[in-house]
Amino acid sequence: MTVTILGLGLIGGSIALSLKENKFADLVIGVDSNIDHILTALDLRIVDKVMRLSDAIAQADIIILAIPVDMLSTMLPHVLNLISENQVVIDVGSTKKIIIDKIKSHPKRRNFIATHPMAGTEFSGPKAAIPNLFTNKNCVLCDVDDSKPELVEIIENMYTNGLKMKVMYLESTSHDVHTAYISHISHICSFALASTVLAKEENENNIFNLASTGFESTVRLAKSNPETWIPIFRQNQQNIIEVMDEYINTLHSYRNLMLAGDYEVLKKMLWQANQIKYVLS
Amino acid sequence: MTVTILGLGLIGGSIALSLKENKFADLVIGVDSNIDHILTALDLRIVDKVMRLSDAIAQADIIILAIPVDMLSTMLPHVLNLISENQVVIDVGSTKKIIIDKIKSHPKRRNFIATHPMAGTEFSGPKAAIPNLFTNKNCVLCDVDDSKPELVEIIENMYTNGLKMKVMYLESTSHDVHTAYISHISHICSFALASTVLAKEENENNIFNLASTGFESTVRLAKSNPETWIPIFRQNQQNIIEVMDEYINTLHSYRNLMLAGDYEVLKKMLWQANQIKYVLS
Repeated sequence: MTVTILGLGLIGGSIALSLKENKFADLVIGVDSNIDHILTALDLRIVDKVMRLSDAIAQADIIILAIPVDMLSTMLPHVLNLISENQVVIDVGSTKKIIIDKIKSHPKRRNFIATHPMAGTEFSGPKAAIPNLFTNKNCVLCDVDDSKPELVEIIENMYTNGLKMKVMYLESTSHDVHTAYISHISHICSFALASTVLAKEENENNIFNLASTGFESTVRLAKSNPETWIPIFRQNQQNIIEVMDEYINTLHSYRNLMLAGDYEVLKKMLWQANQIKYVLS
Repeated sequence: MTVTILGLGLIGGSIALSLKENKFADLVIGVDSNIDHILTALDLRIVDKVMRLSDAIAQADIIILAIPVDMLSTMLPHVLNLISENQVVIDVGSTKKIIIDKIKSHPKRRNFIATHPMAGTEFSGPKAAIPNLFTNKNCVLCDVDDSKPELVEIIENMYTNGLKMKVMYLESTSHDVHTAYISHISHICSFALASTVLAKEENENNIFNLASTGFESTVRLAKSNPETWIPIFRQNQQNIIEVMDEYINTLHSYRNLMLAGDYEVLKKMLWQANQIKYVLS
């Protein structure tokens, strides 16, 4: 199986490493507009070779678009124009509805499968690529009834055997709501917390000497690349604003209970929140 | 050196393990009002023996109070009443000003040192106690000029050699502001995020199937024990409300920029927040 990966960052690079390690891909071809990424991916043997987009597509059984979701909107129709009937194109982006709407009338719509492997780190670029990033994690496939069943089967096989993931299925609208709650808001919480504490630090020296692992864990996602996340926030704006409003309301409740000294009610709310430990192992 | 530890939970238990492992303490005596904690601490050999409070104090060179900060306010004056001139008492709580004010006129004030080893996990109880919890972390000593220098030296030695920590010094008021920013608000963010997502989950099945490591990292602290954290929030209420207001303001700015579609300004704010990666390694 020959796999072409467009975008050799954290996600594209990690997919390349695992597909080769698990012997799903015989050949992985890389495409990237960033010359540093190209050279690093070759140096680190993340891909077997690099090519121009049109040549790389011509040779591929599977074409994986691992680029920021705003570029994806432009690039996906272009890539679909270049493929033949037996080739399959997938994206791995964090938003789904806008991408799917973008190509819903494309003659090659059924050669495209919208996927979202739910894994990542706060790092970016090909140097951040690691094997086993995806192992035992979940991968969502969206609106698969609109894709050719034999191509869906190939991609299910790729995620299951090539990346060792558990495949699940969601309607794209539902995917975007769920990721707003389970992923996008986490990034916003972290960015906002980092902002707040960094602003304070301008007036208070050495505040970070006190940082323990709790703080580090809560702001970890603020180290993520804004160039990746701004397009995600833009594409999933409506869902994210809804979650933010609920989150801000919860914070207001906590704040007002503290101000009123009503710690018994606040304690009940914290015990409810604490139930998260039974949901996440 | 004989050390008595009052409170055999995550913090007290972990201190006990490290002080013995690093051969700082020849004998560690445990005191706890919870019979389960007593039996578990003995089973796991976290302490050498358990005793009544008065007997355990009588034998100790160092007495460590590792109990929730609300109990500390009651217990600390009582413990100071029981000690002799050469004994030293420390607390390890997450708030400092209220505790210090509570005993500022006590005849044994100078036998007390307010300390805060900046380490923990989201787990609680003696089973959560681990060696090396404190290794290479920071420990804050507050208002040390109000304690006897020879006793401060013993405690510096305990933290440096017995727990392998880096000791730093802060005025208690400043400590409480810093911990609001660097620790307490992180817990509130996590509890509020867990609340928000759990509330959504009541209407949306299987939302947690999509949870990746990013979400887990951001809500980790919501697994912490509310019985520990409610007294901390209460004692540091004023500072925490101030940080919460700044945090909520930041979230409002993000939200309103998203609603206005002003992603260029939002991107600049995220890049500022992203600087946290240069502050935290």
